Amino acid sequence: MTAYTATVTVRLKRGVLDPEAETTARALERLGFELEDLRSADRFEVDLEAESAEAARERAEEMAERLLANPTIHDYDVEVAER
Amino acid sequence: MTAYTATVTVRLKRGVLDPEAETTARALERLGFELEDLRSADRFEVDLEAESAEAARERAEEMAERLLANPTIHDYDVEVAER
Repeated sequence: MTAYTATVTVRLKRGVLDPEAETTARALERLGFELEDLRSADRFEVDLEAESAEAARERAEEMAERLLANPTIHDYDVEVAER
Repeated sequence: MTAYTATVTVRLKRGVLDPEAETTARALERLGFELEDLRSADRFEVDLEAESAEAARERAEEMAERLLANPTIHDYDVEVAER
């Protein structure tokens, strides 16, 4: 078994309203910052042990499908690194 | 001016309690997943125009310092890519 960290990034699908990001963008503009767009996402760093990087990725993808992301409104991606 | 996307990742400093991550980890375990630890972080993808990647990074770091992160409890890092 090898120790891995799987990083799952969960973002809203294009077209889904993101009022939190909108509010953050307006607040930055009020502070004087120039920006064109801002998107927010959740990131989960999961430490786990697995037989291989591929097995760690599969387990993290299943975590995303079953709990971390809502497939109706979210896309997600998974990166795996040895730790 | 060049178009960049600056990705700001904001995470809790080590030692700061993260009840959301703790709850997520327990929920995954109840679903039958094995994991050692789980950390959550916020990720902001900011589209901006700047003279150089260095200028884009500096602006994103200032955004983090002034609004996106709370320096008492958060660490952050910034990645910049052309878009």
